Amino acid sequence: MSVQQPKEKIPVGILGATGTVGQRFIQLLDSHPYFVVAAVGASERSAGKLYSDAASRSWKQITTIPAAVGSLTVQKCAPENFTSCRVIFSGLDSDVAGEIETAFLKAEFAVFSNAKNHRMDPVVPLMVPLVNAHHLDIIPHQRSLHNLQKGFLVTNANCSTTGLVVPLKALQDAFGPLSRVIVTTMQAISGAGYPGVPSLDILGNIVPYISGEEEKLEIEAAKILGGLSTNATAFVEAPDMKVSASCNRVPVIDGHTESVFVEFKNRPAPSIEQVTEVLKSYVSEAQKIGAPTAPEHVIEVATLPDRPQPRLDINAGNGNAVVVGRVRECNIFDVKFTLLSHNTILGAAGSSILNAEVAVAKGLIV
Amino acid sequence: MSVQQPKEKIPVGILGATGTVGQRFIQLLDSHPYFVVAAVGASERSAGKLYSDAASRSWKQITTIPAAVGSLTVQKCAPENFTSCRVIFSGLDSDVAGEIETAFLKAEFAVFSNAKNHRMDPVVPLMVPLVNAHHLDIIPHQRSLHNLQKGFLVTNANCSTTGLVVPLKALQDAFGPLSRVIVTTMQAISGAGYPGVPSLDILGNIVPYISGEEEKLEIEAAKILGGLSTNATAFVEAPDMKVSASCNRVPVIDGHTESVFVEFKNRPAPSIEQVTEVLKSYVSEAQKIGAPTAPEHVIEVATLPDRPQPRLDINAGNGNAVVVGRVRECNIFDVKFTLLSHNTILGAAGSSILNAEVAVAKGLIV
Amino acid sequence: MSVQQPKEKIPVGILGATGTVGQRFIQLLDSHPYFVVAAVGASERSAGKLYSDAASRSWKQITTIPAAVGSLTVQKCAPENFTSCRVIFSGLDSDVAGEIETAFLKAEFAVFSNAKNHRMDPVVPLMVPLVNAHHLDIIPHQRSLHNLQKGFLVTNANCSTTGLVVPLKALQDAFGPLSRVIVTTMQAISGAGYPGVPSLDILGNIVPYISGEEEKLEIEAAKILGGLSTNATAFVEAPDMKVSASCNRVPVIDGHTESVFVEFKNRPAPSIEQVTEVLKSYVSEAQKIGAPTAPEHVIEVATLPDRPQPRLDINAGNGNAVVVGRVRECNIFDVKFTLLSHNTILGAAGSSILNAEVAVAKGLIV
Amino acid sequence: MSVQQPKEKIPVGILGATGTVGQRFIQLLDSHPYFVVAAVGASERSAGKLYSDAASRSWKQITTIPAAVGSLTVQKCAPENFTSCRVIFSGLDSDVAGEIETAFLKAEFAVFSNAKNHRMDPVVPLMVPLVNAHHLDIIPHQRSLHNLQKGFLVTNANCSTTGLVVPLKALQDAFGPLSRVIVTTMQAISGAGYPGVPSLDILGNIVPYISGEEEKLEIEAAKILGGLSTNATAFVEAPDMKVSASCNRVPVIDGHTESVFVEFKNRPAPSIEQVTEVLKSYVSEAQKIGAPTAPEHVIEVATLPDRPQPRLDINAGNGNAVVVGRVRECNIFDVKFTLLSHNTILGAAGSSILNAEVAVAKGLIV
Repeated sequence: MSVQQPKEKIPVGILGATGTVGQRFIQLLDSHPYFVVAAVGASERSAGKLYSDAASRSWKQITTIPAAVGSLTVQKCAPENFTSCRVIFSGLDSDVAGEIETAFLKAEFAVFSNAKNHRMDPVVPLMVPLVNAHHLDIIPHQRSLHNLQKGFLVTNANCSTTGLVVPLKALQDAFGPLSRVIVTTMQAISGAGYPGVPSLDILGNIVPYISGEEEKLEIEAAKILGGLSTNATAFVEAPDMKVSASCNRVPVIDGHTESVFVEFKNRPAPSIEQVTEVLKSYVSEAQKIGAPTAPEHVIEVATLPDRPQPRLDINAGNGNAVVVGRVRECNIFDVKFTLLSHNTILGAAGSSILNAEVAVAKGLIV
Repeated sequence: MSVQQPKEKIPVGILGATGTVGQRFIQLLDSHPYFVVAAVGASERSAGKLYSDAASRSWKQITTIPAAVGSLTVQKCAPENFTSCRVIFSGLDSDVAGEIETAFLKAEFAVFSNAKNHRMDPVVPLMVPLVNAHHLDIIPHQRSLHNLQKGFLVTNANCSTTGLVVPLKALQDAFGPLSRVIVTTMQAISGAGYPGVPSLDILGNIVPYISGEEEKLEIEAAKILGGLSTNATAFVEAPDMKVSASCNRVPVIDGHTESVFVEFKNRPAPSIEQVTEVLKSYVSEAQKIGAPTAPEHVIEVATLPDRPQPRLDINAGNGNAVVVGRVRECNIFDVKFTLLSHNTILGAAGSSILNAEVAVAKGLIV
Repeated sequence: MSVQQPKEKIPVGILGATGTVGQRFIQLLDSHPYFVVAAVGASERSAGKLYSDAASRSWKQITTIPAAVGSLTVQKCAPENFTSCRVIFSGLDSDVAGEIETAFLKAEFAVFSNAKNHRMDPVVPLMVPLVNAHHLDIIPHQRSLHNLQKGFLVTNANCSTTGLVVPLKALQDAFGPLSRVIVTTMQAISGAGYPGVPSLDILGNIVPYISGEEEKLEIEAAKILGGLSTNATAFVEAPDMKVSASCNRVPVIDGHTESVFVEFKNRPAPSIEQVTEVLKSYVSEAQKIGAPTAPEHVIEVATLPDRPQPRLDINAGNGNAVVVGRVRECNIFDVKFTLLSHNTILGAAGSSILNAEVAVAKGLIV
Repeated sequence: MSVQQPKEKIPVGILGATGTVGQRFIQLLDSHPYFVVAAVGASERSAGKLYSDAASRSWKQITTIPAAVGSLTVQKCAPENFTSCRVIFSGLDSDVAGEIETAFLKAEFAVFSNAKNHRMDPVVPLMVPLVNAHHLDIIPHQRSLHNLQKGFLVTNANCSTTGLVVPLKALQDAFGPLSRVIVTTMQAISGAGYPGVPSLDILGNIVPYISGEEEKLEIEAAKILGGLSTNATAFVEAPDMKVSASCNRVPVIDGHTESVFVEFKNRPAPSIEQVTEVLKSYVSEAQKIGAPTAPEHVIEVATLPDRPQPRLDINAGNGNAVVVGRVRECNIFDVKFTLLSHNTILGAAGSSILNAEVAVAKGLIV
């Protein structure tokens, strides 16, 4: 595979730049080898201010605002304000993301979105970079449908879906289709943005409900783990796989933990040793293609019995790896395990960036 | 059924009285209509001290030590020190509970144990008072085997098992056998006793492992939900029911939350409305028999979508009820729901006390 | 003193009834011996709905909505909707409390307010019921100024002030004026209402700032600890006492903890034993007058070195007592200690109710 | 000043290597420009095992065990097992640190200790590297007293003292002696080691007591902020300065927050602007001397009103800076502010390492 690397850094714009996901984009893109933040967009309330002024109070990252971004003037989220950019990373909320992202697509930007609005669009990849980078092959068809030369739109998945599909992909590749997956999530508060979850609701507490989350988990996994039609014009859902989810909010800052129970379609099912080995040795296309932020080990398999834990394992692969532990037999399905993923890195901004790195490598950013 | 109530209060002894479960016994027995604490036992280190001195630093209840108990002298846990008592509540740790409880049994005490040691004994009831009070019918057989006149031993279940089997029992009674139950628990730190879980392990964190817990859940449920042989000399496991569990520790003080997925054996499965109605209207034998701390509603079905929550619902039925919420269809099994139970009341001391109330009502405490 | 008790329960109205303080009023007034909730008021959005419908999602108390209140129809906060009531408890936010409370005052209601708006009004008592019940003697003057027959307005203090002034009053009564008080607070999240503090700001964190809080502590204490002019027409500030505060938000649900350093004006300063004895034996006018929710011991002095703690001591006196611990010498001032008070009971709704009980006893509610 | 840098890395040994402070040493020394871990010591229970085996379960850092250290065999803490080392970093508990550290001193090692045992020794520097590096000038006298050629012993201060004395030193240097300092601390759980604080004691709670902590704060500050006698044979306490402390444990993982009230001896006291400017511009000897882990800005002055916060500011200066915020007038003393320091980096292992870097620069490590 001929991998393409940019000769000079590609200017990118961040939509929703003052929000939680937007802040992560800015943090993760600081000193990025491919991309440089050239414009930031936010709501009318922030537009016209310096980013450092608009974001200082709401900035909730443990690193400070990069000086170069702090000195940018916040723009309204309209394509004409981002002409210096070739790539757009969108951290917009779903209540506004639909129309704005479409406008940037039509204006020939390469758009990488975190919002749910376009995820189930039949020609838009719902792409977890460590899982289904090949879904990018639909981009020529997407462009032709929209009469575009350079522009295209890629979405990444819901944060709890993202962590789940990585080990499922490894297992599916090695052992054939999965028939049934039951998952209970314990999701971090950062997944709800800022101000997000009131402290009175979650301090010393569990909230057993996240609106719309279980439906996303149950629907998105089938698209991501599915394939492309032979002429690369349509997605084909993973056949026969059913997912049932129960989603909970827990008092953790970053890191979604998921208890997963998996049944394979093919008999005999693999042994626990085989499953463990396959998880450990899984290599994604993003790694093969040389995406710079792809983790060295996509899946880290914990050896201690009480891991993964958000507090100790959240930075695996700089937040872009999935940590799997407690791989063991299930006396109902075939195998059960616990996984942890970083919901605002791999589960949000980190995935978008990795998706863009893959798109660069595949020559799609022109 | 002729219910028996004690004419005067029955003197009881508490073993492991300075520990977390022992403290709950003392708290819950304050002003109890049947029982009065007449003796307290603990390790050699505490023996000989006033209870108020021995327990003051380790007392972690939000109510103060009842004065009458505070003035008792702590005894070593030997039957000869408890001759004033007819009933023994044991909150001993499993590393010492086995032999000590056996000694009290042989000394003709009615022993109600929280420890795991005797739970799977073929003639010892593993009794969740809101579920299988009829298992007490094995006591005559237990006595005859041990050549006892008055003594007997009843255990209550592991805290996470206890919460689970209550709604399962309601469903089984109404709709026939359950075939498969998958459960992920989110368990409170008080379940580990004191000092228990180090704060560095759980503050803002999830620990996806509790030693031995999943095995208990998977094994105990079948005994509790099973029946008795016709001559009341043996327990018969719930046939065909498989349970698979994934247990997690969460930063919650009191209250185990469980995400449950249930499949019925009989087709067609009941509707969500039928399941909900059956949970709401479930009445246990403990209620019928007039046990004073049996909750008015054994199962409270939450109507708000984000409930039950430990912080808001933990006191349902004074800690002896189970709150079930989010009863909904499962696209793999038949129904899924979330339950909450108080792990140190219904899941420990409260169950033991309720078991003893039932035993009084059935004329077993003589 | 001839104490007056109501012959039949006095109908009361709650303003801001769906908010955090309003909910506490409703919870604490359930089965109150003097008062019965006859009307509930809230914003236009809630007006016209049943209280149980308007408040069900925002109800964050561990007890359920009392049935009698749940079936009331929520009113707009205007006097004409509360004609069945003689007493008004206001849990309104300060952005609307000023005008609305004045309207109720002018309409001849006895108004008890939690808001800051009227606290420093020269004829309005700023009254901590366990401290300065005698400030009610200004009510005749207040009525005459406003040409009122029955109506009057009493405010209670800021939550962090309330806990502080109780032991300060005991010390001042026994040992004369205090000259300097330095206090650092560690305040619970419930003090900020709901949704209040975002969880991302406070989980595993400390926020060293609460807007306006230090100023309130520094100003209010002097009015509360001060006296009345001889003709009962003006308040006289505690002379010479200076208070300097540093206020912090901590991840605690209920209960403000305060580290206090105190210097007396008179030399020699009392000994630690004298200070401790005076705190323990302090009796407030509210107790003497027989207010039903006045705690038996206004100040509980903890004997264990690591107390008071919010989790263990918050319910002292049903939330209306102050727990003081660690009374010890200060090598700069004279004495230092730690106090804990329940910020939404004694620090808010509980104080208002106690104030009203005192007003009943003094014959002011007609 | 002629600064000395090591030509090749200096081999160091870690005592108490499996404990919380020991782990921090190992983490912070990974890739250190001066030092390389050559030996690790722990209790008999761990001795003889590979460090990776001995420490894997207790390792509570967010980074993994460096491979080179993991492959070392754990030694008993005796000088003969550390002959390959020239410098010893001790993270031993105070119950064993006294004798062991003395043995290493006598065996001619340069010992840097975190324990309290030798802190008040009249010839042992109690050294906060950003404050009193000049106290190292006593080492020749220390050596002569103990008849040593190369060996010496330096202690660092208690974690809560360390954060406090940094801004106090800046103020003292600029404005003359401080007369009175009142401080209330809110200290992180990591300060108590592992297992340390039980979660039942601190989750959603405040514990207003840390054994011995207030005494350390009140005593150590005077030694650190004091000087050396002219012949460098004795320490001279900061005259006239009194410190009074109230210490609290809070549910924060890392980072001690302190509310500080300061009175200067000289009149007129500096303005808030002068104080702020002096804090911002403070430069320590460790920086001047080129210590590689000395932060660029020793004191960062926060500009937002609600800072510093442990969650957001804990990594300032890679954990070796102090963040000061809310510098404002005190109406009793002269100025009050809030500070934050990293209790296991600057407050423990980081200070020891910085102290050793300074000793290298001063030519003391031979």
